[in-house]
Amino acid sequence: MSEEFRIVAVIGKYRSTDVSGSVAAMAAFLRDRGIEVWIEAGTAQLGGNEAGHRVASIEEIGEYADLVIVLGGDGSMLTAARALGMHQLPLVGVNQGRLGFLTDVSHAEMFDRVGEILDGRYLRERRSLLEVELWREGLHLRTAMALNDIVLSRGEIGRMIEFELSVDGEYIYTQRSDGMIIATPTGSTAYALSANGPILHPRLAGIVLVPLCPHALTYRPLALAQDSVVELKVLGDRARDAVVHCDGQTIVEVGRGDVLRILRSDHGVTLLHPEGYSYFNVLREKLHWSAVPDLS
Amino acid sequence: MSEEFRIVAVIGKYRSTDVSGSVAAMAAFLRDRGIEVWIEAGTAQLGGNEAGHRVASIEEIGEYADLVIVLGGDGSMLTAARALGMHQLPLVGVNQGRLGFLTDVSHAEMFDRVGEILDGRYLRERRSLLEVELWREGLHLRTAMALNDIVLSRGEIGRMIEFELSVDGEYIYTQRSDGMIIATPTGSTAYALSANGPILHPRLAGIVLVPLCPHALTYRPLALAQDSVVELKVLGDRARDAVVHCDGQTIVEVGRGDVLRILRSDHGVTLLHPEGYSYFNVLREKLHWSAVPDLS
Amino acid sequence: MSEEFRIVAVIGKYRSTDVSGSVAAMAAFLRDRGIEVWIEAGTAQLGGNEAGHRVASIEEIGEYADLVIVLGGDGSMLTAARALGMHQLPLVGVNQGRLGFLTDVSHAEMFDRVGEILDGRYLRERRSLLEVELWREGLHLRTAMALNDIVLSRGEIGRMIEFELSVDGEYIYTQRSDGMIIATPTGSTAYALSANGPILHPRLAGIVLVPLCPHALTYRPLALAQDSVVELKVLGDRARDAVVHCDGQTIVEVGRGDVLRILRSDHGVTLLHPEGYSYFNVLREKLHWSAVPDLS
Amino acid sequence: MSEEFRIVAVIGKYRSTDVSGSVAAMAAFLRDRGIEVWIEAGTAQLGGNEAGHRVASIEEIGEYADLVIVLGGDGSMLTAARALGMHQLPLVGVNQGRLGFLTDVSHAEMFDRVGEILDGRYLRERRSLLEVELWREGLHLRTAMALNDIVLSRGEIGRMIEFELSVDGEYIYTQRSDGMIIATPTGSTAYALSANGPILHPRLAGIVLVPLCPHALTYRPLALAQDSVVELKVLGDRARDAVVHCDGQTIVEVGRGDVLRILRSDHGVTLLHPEGYSYFNVLREKLHWSAVPDLS
Repeated sequence: MSEEFRIVAVIGKYRSTDVSGSVAAMAAFLRDRGIEVWIEAGTAQLGGNEAGHRVASIEEIGEYADLVIVLGGDGSMLTAARALGMHQLPLVGVNQGRLGFLTDVSHAEMFDRVGEILDGRYLRERRSLLEVELWREGLHLRTAMALNDIVLSRGEIGRMIEFELSVDGEYIYTQRSDGMIIATPTGSTAYALSANGPILHPRLAGIVLVPLCPHALTYRPLALAQDSVVELKVLGDRARDAVVHCDGQTIVEVGRGDVLRILRSDHGVTLLHPEGYSYFNVLREKLHWSAVPDLS
Repeated sequence: MSEEFRIVAVIGKYRSTDVSGSVAAMAAFLRDRGIEVWIEAGTAQLGGNEAGHRVASIEEIGEYADLVIVLGGDGSMLTAARALGMHQLPLVGVNQGRLGFLTDVSHAEMFDRVGEILDGRYLRERRSLLEVELWREGLHLRTAMALNDIVLSRGEIGRMIEFELSVDGEYIYTQRSDGMIIATPTGSTAYALSANGPILHPRLAGIVLVPLCPHALTYRPLALAQDSVVELKVLGDRARDAVVHCDGQTIVEVGRGDVLRILRSDHGVTLLHPEGYSYFNVLREKLHWSAVPDLS
Repeated sequence: MSEEFRIVAVIGKYRSTDVSGSVAAMAAFLRDRGIEVWIEAGTAQLGGNEAGHRVASIEEIGEYADLVIVLGGDGSMLTAARALGMHQLPLVGVNQGRLGFLTDVSHAEMFDRVGEILDGRYLRERRSLLEVELWREGLHLRTAMALNDIVLSRGEIGRMIEFELSVDGEYIYTQRSDGMIIATPTGSTAYALSANGPILHPRLAGIVLVPLCPHALTYRPLALAQDSVVELKVLGDRARDAVVHCDGQTIVEVGRGDVLRILRSDHGVTLLHPEGYSYFNVLREKLHWSAVPDLS
Repeated sequence: MSEEFRIVAVIGKYRSTDVSGSVAAMAAFLRDRGIEVWIEAGTAQLGGNEAGHRVASIEEIGEYADLVIVLGGDGSMLTAARALGMHQLPLVGVNQGRLGFLTDVSHAEMFDRVGEILDGRYLRERRSLLEVELWREGLHLRTAMALNDIVLSRGEIGRMIEFELSVDGEYIYTQRSDGMIIATPTGSTAYALSANGPILHPRLAGIVLVPLCPHALTYRPLALAQDSVVELKVLGDRARDAVVHCDGQTIVEVGRGDVLRILRSDHGVTLLHPEGYSYFNVLREKLHWSAVPDLS
């Protein structure tokens, strides 16, 4: 039995029955080590809990569990991280397909690697979360969290949006573009990378702003200290022609006069990696740095 | 009286009353030179035809007029060009605000420059149009034209789309991205430029494909000979999660299995420029090539 | 015996003994088919002509041979192409290592593929060459040719250079940068690609200008019609602080007042490809378009 | 008299007589306020010290002066910063031409702004310096400092260089390219920006690595925490085909086996800005963020 991890929760891929077998196998593996296993409610509904482990809500898991094992892809980790960000318990990501940036334990090795982690052989890493507050006519309508990025982008109409950027209360510029990505170091290798943003190492305490197809040629990605407060004020003449996504999930439509206030969350996410883990190793594999196209 | 231009049509900015005064003044200027003036029907509705010039549909203008003067911005020229592309008559663009890429006669000089053009002192330039055919389940649903670009892009949901690219019937690659711009040389200085595309000189007989935030790092803008046939086949599992724009106008939602077939139109647009016109001069002004940021 | 290719010349990798065995084997293969084999003089010196085939200068080859087989990499093809550009005879490139953009026959399949070509089963493709003339104080000092690109770049001192760009006699802009690449479609997948240039399909009759680290943010790659004449006039206050390369080979140091005049050569290069050859297939392999990094 | 700044040194533009008048005027202005004025030795040699102020070496200035006023451009500030980095005294930059990133007091306002600074009305800002150690065959040959950037780049020969990148002792990748820029936040708006690097705010405690024309398409700018140790090991087969620059000054030629070890210096530079100073305001002006090219 693990001293440290008494209650371990298992979360499967969101709304997918693909991982039921893995959920059941992982739960059995944990129980055989004398660990109390909880299955997240949504996961349990989709199968994988024939053994009758305790079914728990995400809130209960956040409150009482000592460790969460996510069986899915990076998307599943993002969802779990946002939901559990206000709690302290650590996450382990087990990828069911290709390795991910966040799910760095492969399915083939999951028992070995999770076993080592339960034995206390792991690397602990803290990742920042961002918070976005939506303000409309002076009212704070809602708040959402993101582990990767918050994106303001044009809606379906296809016309550029226009917004004012401020940092720490100072006006920076007015931009017409398809939108703006505000990413954590974790998110710098996700959508921001495909929009030509730089890679930010997780140890760099920063936030990066990456414009989407800006109308002028003089905008560049801008990396700020992580305690910066970023505000985007939507301009233009239309009521709801822009949309806000957190980690790729639509949260709200916005329009003229709406303000997004984005800052580093007080909360964060703790990841546990197997001992051999290397951030750069994941990058090298995911970005094919070893694959040298011969351009000459 | 101009030998060459017997009937000249005036088209104002789409659904805008801003240019009524200019329309009336230009019509009077033309009539004073003995020219028969037609006012486009939509333009006439918004005012500017107090003098009672003949009101004509865009089809009548295309059929019978010898010259079209567009009073507006580049957007107005794009609309006129698409509507008149199948006819032979030339267009002159008079900008009501800042100079445009296509509207290179300024409001301040419009009588002098248009006068010179009527006197036969002009540069004639031919610009290509693109055609996009939408195919669904083996049926050719519709065709649309573009002077700048045809864009396939993700809808509002915010998730990447996936499509197969073929050129001249040959499979090129499968891409996950925010979409793809297929632009003419004219369009290479519009949206494609803000997506990191190259500038194509109008004399270069080419088409350029510019990916929007591609998921992989190895895609680059690709310039093809203008007689190439480009096909984009939408993949993915959703019915209508992508959208097609021609020159920034939404034309249709598309989804799994739909095919866009894009090729150079048999038609094209003839622009008349004042004699001093220079393509590079417009670029230098619009792109601020004279403005050298001191980076050191 | 091949009707078409009576005399076939073999050229090995420049100043390398690596390919002597391949040269000998290819020569034997050709002779066994009743073909008269010539070995290029520089190649013969490095071994591979134990069988005593006729040794010929590159000029003799250009004058009298019907086909050239280059055994090496893309660099060897570039050298052969520049040397033979003024002649009409076609080239086949056999790669000794990884496949190249220009050397699309692999070593493993060279007898099968070359055999098919000798039997008349091939695709013939014409590629453009560029010419650069160096003018100093009104004198035309020299001319050089390039299949990939002509590059003006800063010398070792490490300071930016400054030059004026003109196209067809019209001033375009004055740029401070590390230099400028002027590339053919063939060269667009070489150095120009690593400087963020677009890919130009070989059937597109164009030239592309790609700035190297320009001091201002508003410069972009510029693709011109291939009959354009490009001039770069070196400014600055130093005698020889810039350097010109053709296909990566240093040709000359230049400085204040020197003018490079670059235009499409009257000559070109004819490549023969095996029948299954596809330009896009080479790109897909070389640029790893099939390797989709999972960025999410 | 200023309590804080008893001895103020004046440094003029390196090897330039352009600023002698400004040096003399600034010295007189300071003396009239009861300040002891020192003129840097190299500056004094070029004129501007007709009044006979004490002439001091850069070492004496570093040791004893309380403030340095640099009259020149950003290049002059870079030189002063590297020379004085190991001392604590602050610098003020007065630009003689266009405003610079580091020389944010204009010539026209220099007496007002310097007067305010002497009165204690200023913003104090700390900027990091980088150190590069050159190691050859196990020996530490030399160390140099940079306020903007350390650049490893190809020499004049024009061929790519090849090097191994390590961070904190971990191998990252082997790259073939024109070189690599390692920049401070200060340097992120200099050369690194023209090589497509991101802007790093000075409050972000980071270092950014920007590849120069990498041979593969999968490299991106990489921002690291500032306590990272970056190593570049030169590969390839040539003795001295690469060169190292610090802030654009050549420091040494390097070749096969040489190792550059780059890390944040224990020293740094203190800048004093006039009270109205804003980093983003400088950026907006220098990068023409207010100049919105109309791309449509």
